[in-house]
Amino acid sequence: MNLKKIAVLTSGGDAPGMNACIRAVVKASLHFELECIGIYDGFQGLIDRKSCVLDYAVVNNVIQRGGTILGTARSQEFRTTEGRQKAISYLKELQVDGLIVIGGDGSFTGAKILGDEYDLPIIGIPGTIDNDIYGTDHTIGYDTALNTVVDAVDKIRDTASSHHRVFFVEVMGRDSGFIALNAAIASGAESVLIPEELTDIPKLAESIKTQNKGKRGSIIIIAEGDDAGDAVTIMNKVKPYLPDYDLRCTILGHIQRGGNPSAYDRIIATRMGAKAVELLREGMTDKMIGMQGDLIVISSIEDGIKKESSPDLSKLELLAQLRTKK
Amino acid sequence: MNLKKIAVLTSGGDAPGMNACIRAVVKASLHFELECIGIYDGFQGLIDRKSCVLDYAVVNNVIQRGGTILGTARSQEFRTTEGRQKAISYLKELQVDGLIVIGGDGSFTGAKILGDEYDLPIIGIPGTIDNDIYGTDHTIGYDTALNTVVDAVDKIRDTASSHHRVFFVEVMGRDSGFIALNAAIASGAESVLIPEELTDIPKLAESIKTQNKGKRGSIIIIAEGDDAGDAVTIMNKVKPYLPDYDLRCTILGHIQRGGNPSAYDRIIATRMGAKAVELLREGMTDKMIGMQGDLIVISSIEDGIKKESSPDLSKLELLAQLRTKK
Amino acid sequence: MNLKKIAVLTSGGDAPGMNACIRAVVKASLHFELECIGIYDGFQGLIDRKSCVLDYAVVNNVIQRGGTILGTARSQEFRTTEGRQKAISYLKELQVDGLIVIGGDGSFTGAKILGDEYDLPIIGIPGTIDNDIYGTDHTIGYDTALNTVVDAVDKIRDTASSHHRVFFVEVMGRDSGFIALNAAIASGAESVLIPEELTDIPKLAESIKTQNKGKRGSIIIIAEGDDAGDAVTIMNKVKPYLPDYDLRCTILGHIQRGGNPSAYDRIIATRMGAKAVELLREGMTDKMIGMQGDLIVISSIEDGIKKESSPDLSKLELLAQLRTKK
Amino acid sequence: MNLKKIAVLTSGGDAPGMNACIRAVVKASLHFELECIGIYDGFQGLIDRKSCVLDYAVVNNVIQRGGTILGTARSQEFRTTEGRQKAISYLKELQVDGLIVIGGDGSFTGAKILGDEYDLPIIGIPGTIDNDIYGTDHTIGYDTALNTVVDAVDKIRDTASSHHRVFFVEVMGRDSGFIALNAAIASGAESVLIPEELTDIPKLAESIKTQNKGKRGSIIIIAEGDDAGDAVTIMNKVKPYLPDYDLRCTILGHIQRGGNPSAYDRIIATRMGAKAVELLREGMTDKMIGMQGDLIVISSIEDGIKKESSPDLSKLELLAQLRTKK
Repeated sequence: MNLKKIAVLTSGGDAPGMNACIRAVVKASLHFELECIGIYDGFQGLIDRKSCVLDYAVVNNVIQRGGTILGTARSQEFRTTEGRQKAISYLKELQVDGLIVIGGDGSFTGAKILGDEYDLPIIGIPGTIDNDIYGTDHTIGYDTALNTVVDAVDKIRDTASSHHRVFFVEVMGRDSGFIALNAAIASGAESVLIPEELTDIPKLAESIKTQNKGKRGSIIIIAEGDDAGDAVTIMNKVKPYLPDYDLRCTILGHIQRGGNPSAYDRIIATRMGAKAVELLREGMTDKMIGMQGDLIVISSIEDGIKKESSPDLSKLELLAQLRTKK
Repeated sequence: MNLKKIAVLTSGGDAPGMNACIRAVVKASLHFELECIGIYDGFQGLIDRKSCVLDYAVVNNVIQRGGTILGTARSQEFRTTEGRQKAISYLKELQVDGLIVIGGDGSFTGAKILGDEYDLPIIGIPGTIDNDIYGTDHTIGYDTALNTVVDAVDKIRDTASSHHRVFFVEVMGRDSGFIALNAAIASGAESVLIPEELTDIPKLAESIKTQNKGKRGSIIIIAEGDDAGDAVTIMNKVKPYLPDYDLRCTILGHIQRGGNPSAYDRIIATRMGAKAVELLREGMTDKMIGMQGDLIVISSIEDGIKKESSPDLSKLELLAQLRTKK
Repeated sequence: MNLKKIAVLTSGGDAPGMNACIRAVVKASLHFELECIGIYDGFQGLIDRKSCVLDYAVVNNVIQRGGTILGTARSQEFRTTEGRQKAISYLKELQVDGLIVIGGDGSFTGAKILGDEYDLPIIGIPGTIDNDIYGTDHTIGYDTALNTVVDAVDKIRDTASSHHRVFFVEVMGRDSGFIALNAAIASGAESVLIPEELTDIPKLAESIKTQNKGKRGSIIIIAEGDDAGDAVTIMNKVKPYLPDYDLRCTILGHIQRGGNPSAYDRIIATRMGAKAVELLREGMTDKMIGMQGDLIVISSIEDGIKKESSPDLSKLELLAQLRTKK
Repeated sequence: MNLKKIAVLTSGGDAPGMNACIRAVVKASLHFELECIGIYDGFQGLIDRKSCVLDYAVVNNVIQRGGTILGTARSQEFRTTEGRQKAISYLKELQVDGLIVIGGDGSFTGAKILGDEYDLPIIGIPGTIDNDIYGTDHTIGYDTALNTVVDAVDKIRDTASSHHRVFFVEVMGRDSGFIALNAAIASGAESVLIPEELTDIPKLAESIKTQNKGKRGSIIIIAEGDDAGDAVTIMNKVKPYLPDYDLRCTILGHIQRGGNPSAYDRIIATRMGAKAVELLREGMTDKMIGMQGDLIVISSIEDGIKKESSPDLSKLELLAQLRTKK
């Protein structure tokens, strides 16, 4: 096949660095004299026939901006055969020879089904703050989100110390504990609760007591997907064990999704974007791009969808070693 | 009276810049060869007899740190005559000739009663993120909190734009709308709800509709003290008017209290701290220090307690002018 | 006169908050159904006939961006009668009924001459990081630049402390010491050199010696316009007095001009921009807008040009009080 | 041998994250009931007999602070046999059973010689912003420095765009181009000059011309060790080729060494610190700890000293692909 025109879309939750990735896709495409089409609002944009031509001007000065200039959405309609038929019909009309999908595993599933129903080369780039994708050490947006969380916890630590309070801080991550576990290490949190480990409330309460001796305040990081419930629920479960403690709860919320991407996220986003164009030029399809250390690695998009990724649980032992022992 | 020894405490909610203020109190005291005692945990520390000698080493490298190295608390016991007798007895024992109280109007009330019951020169320095104190344009911590809020809203804007969402962002401020109103201007928010203005839900819904045309997402800033309820309540009241909109809510919470103080907060904190020592040296009492523009002003601490301060409501008209008109 | 169309330009050095100001000018203009024209690259753009129509889309999402979307320049040609004739001819052609100039005193001089030679209502808005304009407590960009400097000095303090070094840090400010003096207070610098005070090298050396006792590193802030020369020159003059010290020099440079504007800069920029449109609507001309505390004030643009503004030198005494005394 | 007491020191240039690493060494030591001694000011502190006992209180609240609480220095005296004899004599007196050295390759060389002359188990942890150490993907401090550089270049981009200027930005990295090359990718710089590639001035000038078409300003990142000289020299060499361009130069300087460490630097610092204690407990010596992706790896300290590490030069091709093509 002679590659002449490619399309790119962002899908699922937005993540900082998506714009840096779009920029790299566009610039690498133009470098190799390919036309580059941007699809608005993820797969829904294919159904709604919303797209634009991407050129140098559009991606000028976006490398440092959070969010995605193409917009993103979670499309129910695309889960139906009718929806996808509309999408395929629009892709045909656009005459694109390849599609780059930047998003999480849900987006990869959509891409895979599309590729199965319409013979179009598809490359997936992992973009999600949750870092829960097999085949890559890090997803685009994760490093920025982690820094946002750690920066927020530093601020909360100021007030926790000043008031001798115990803060339960809920962070994002869907079903996985990547953000929570690593933010706990980076912020020097006294405890962390993640979905990958069963939460033991009495033990948590005991640990808070021990940790708090001689200290001015404690931080407990809670992954939103924890088995014991959300941060408020967990705080209320702990309360009876610690009647004399000033317990507080804060849910970091959507600030974790935005912000200027970190240097690392911009670098991997840029590298992955250019690589995706290269893979399409080489005639590949159904591949996912990932990072292993400083190396770019290629795996099947199917692995990205089906295989699980989970954080290194030996970090829980590390945290245990770092606890104040009295 | 011959001033030889002074004490300083921080009280009420902690605010960024309190440490810069303590540092200035200590350094100015030592410059004039006064001893300086730090009381821990606000007025409660007087009751619990917790204090330390403050010297250069203690305040080295704290100008840039959030929170308060002295700790702070809201003391119930100090509201009783017995509690205050313990506090006075400790002050006598410490032989301090003057007391500097850094905090909000509640703290000033405590200081005033103490000064009435025990003849001790007292100077109040306004330290609270809420900016709700009469007699000063700005309180210590307000500028930092405002920047933290604006930075957070910038991040939320990224994701609001990417997903075409309407975000209801709840910010601090207790009964006053300073943070909310000024953050709304600084972040380009589409609407703001503050306690000083009656909230009109149908009008808000209408405005969201108008603003959202051709735009990718809207931000509504909500002061925690708004008459229509908290952000979740307000969002739920708006929902029936906007069934097709993707409405989201986020409560910024305690990140607003912490963080490295801004340049402005460090400057006014430093100036006020040194000024407080000067006022004690001049034999003044029951005074509150404030800023008017770039000038330091002195008022009675009673004014700081009794008179109201509220944001400039003409800024609501300004916001109306800035709205997209369709 | 019936005001229908206004123009806005940014001139001189760029300053963070200029975009927030342009945005407010545009939005307030459209609110009052005025057309708004943007002139590119300051007065040079009038000569080169470069302009654009400013509407909601252009100023969407620029409130938080540093620099100026209109560009800026220092125009030699505009200093000639021929140059200005070209500019006037273009203004006539554009049929604008008023001009808003955002810039420093040099830009105001240009605006004033233009207003004298061509009968056009002109309003000046002080936009410069240097804060050296009479008639306003603060200029747009100053607060952001101050925060950038303080943040940089915090970083340099880390390495100064770790290595026991004395750092000479040169900051911007042209002929004035606003940034240097206030950054010195906010960063806890050991000394500051500003153009408004004669520099005494032996005294500086002596002070460094005293300050450094028991401390791990010192910071000397130097205004670029200091009478004793630039930071390298000053360091070399100090060196013979302190042969055993590890002296280092760093020039902060152009990072001081950029960056996302602070909350304060966005607020005053927004207020001033809307006010400028109001003044034109009221038929005023040759006025400059300023801030006094939290109040907007109006003065003649001539005062802004001719009268001097200088920092509060009592802050030097404050710094002296804050020095470690041994 | 029965491990009872260990010592830790930081050496060479300071790097953000060193404190997080010291904290982990201390906490892991105490967890395993080992005494932990901190040596001040690197190897010089061994000669000067300056040390302290490290306990929980000392490392409380330091994880987020730049610099090193132990101080660091480059010691000439330690390069002499006499100097090292003093150091060894102090180590004997302290009765430490193992030494952890956090620093760059120069520090590792010192550690190795010490370990050869005095039979003491030694573990090296790579701490330097330059990232130029074999055996690890990343050194402690590199990620923070990279983010500081990228943040600064974002700011400079604002003013470069506003004034249509070409900025030559010099960054740290000693003899290696890690920071420059990766910062160039992350900041969307138009060109980069690194020591690992011969600089071709006419080609650079040509590229600036091409890049600048239709763009508002360009950024050229220059590694301090580049073969064509420092940023000022290079700018002056380019000038004759581009007489009509507004060329500017800025040297980022020491801000690159300081600042709160990034999440990533805190995590690897913490992991490496705890690992170093583990290795000493296992009886290992002359090892260096490194990161490969998310995995901790162990190599001989000799490799860290003798083998070279250089950035992935295929990133230069990536940058070429990202250039605007006209």
